[in-house]
Amino acid sequence: MTAHQLSVTVAINSWKLVVERANKFFSNLSDDQLFKEVAPGRNRLIYLWGHLTAIHDAMFPILGLGERLHPELDATFVSHPDKKDTQLPAASDLKKYWDEVNRKLLSQFESLPVDEWLQRHRAMSEEDYAKDPTRNRLAVLLSRTNHASYHLGQAVLARE
Amino acid sequence: MTAHQLSVTVAINSWKLVVERANKFFSNLSDDQLFKEVAPGRNRLIYLWGHLTAIHDAMFPILGLGERLHPELDATFVSHPDKKDTQLPAASDLKKYWDEVNRKLLSQFESLPVDEWLQRHRAMSEEDYAKDPTRNRLAVLLSRTNHASYHLGQAVLARE
Repeated sequence: MTAHQLSVTVAINSWKLVVERANKFFSNLSDDQLFKEVAPGRNRLIYLWGHLTAIHDAMFPILGLGERLHPELDATFVSHPDKKDTQLPAASDLKKYWDEVNRKLLSQFESLPVDEWLQRHRAMSEEDYAKDPTRNRLAVLLSRTNHASYHLGQAVLARE
Repeated sequence: MTAHQLSVTVAINSWKLVVERANKFFSNLSDDQLFKEVAPGRNRLIYLWGHLTAIHDAMFPILGLGERLHPELDATFVSHPDKKDTQLPAASDLKKYWDEVNRKLLSQFESLPVDEWLQRHRAMSEEDYAKDPTRNRLAVLLSRTNHASYHLGQAVLARE
């Protein structure tokens, strides 16, 4: 294994660990628990779960790994804050989307040739990437791992 | 820049970004605000700040980068949960420790020869590292970046 391969493996392991922790937390909640707020007046757990699913789903196009599986989630979970009167997907459907998105992402991460992690991500122009080659796919992976950690930290506060 | 150098730079950038966000958040709080809980009955902001300072300080020995600057923080901020009757350091001292620890860490990260990031961390035996070379310094860096994100996500909930 080259040094670069090893460092990409470390980054993918870190992503896996955080997604597995989030999965263990969210997938074991009852429907009632999913409607608890993380703190008074703050996001409900089901909103955070949908938000993470949508943001992870959006990684496919940003990383140049294909089309999104569930772009329809953005209207509820990204473009708008949590609102009590919003129609939400059933928890069982959300779990299906979450599993589907994370399973496909991980399988693509693990099969991506290691040098392609250093290619620009698709939210960057070729020109900006030429100036700053750290704005690459690997940076997106670390940033989304931090994002998931951030919301997982909030989510666990709703635990009894 | 080699591929491996580039990936280490991406990891250090991710650490910097999260620490800068935490710094911006905690360093601008008044003493009163520091005593707010992130959710009812949960950690106070000052506790989270001290906890992050202590965990970052502990990275020096784990990464083999020298002695800790403030091992005394562990008794208050790591070994015990937040308690209302604990004697806490003054906010101004905590800020000094936080700045000192993170400044020294970053300077060491930026001067560490890139291949040394793949050496084992000191909480691992040589034997276990031989079996799993992903248990290296880079893995510790990503794990502590996630840890800081996790608690920062909680801290921002205390904001009005």
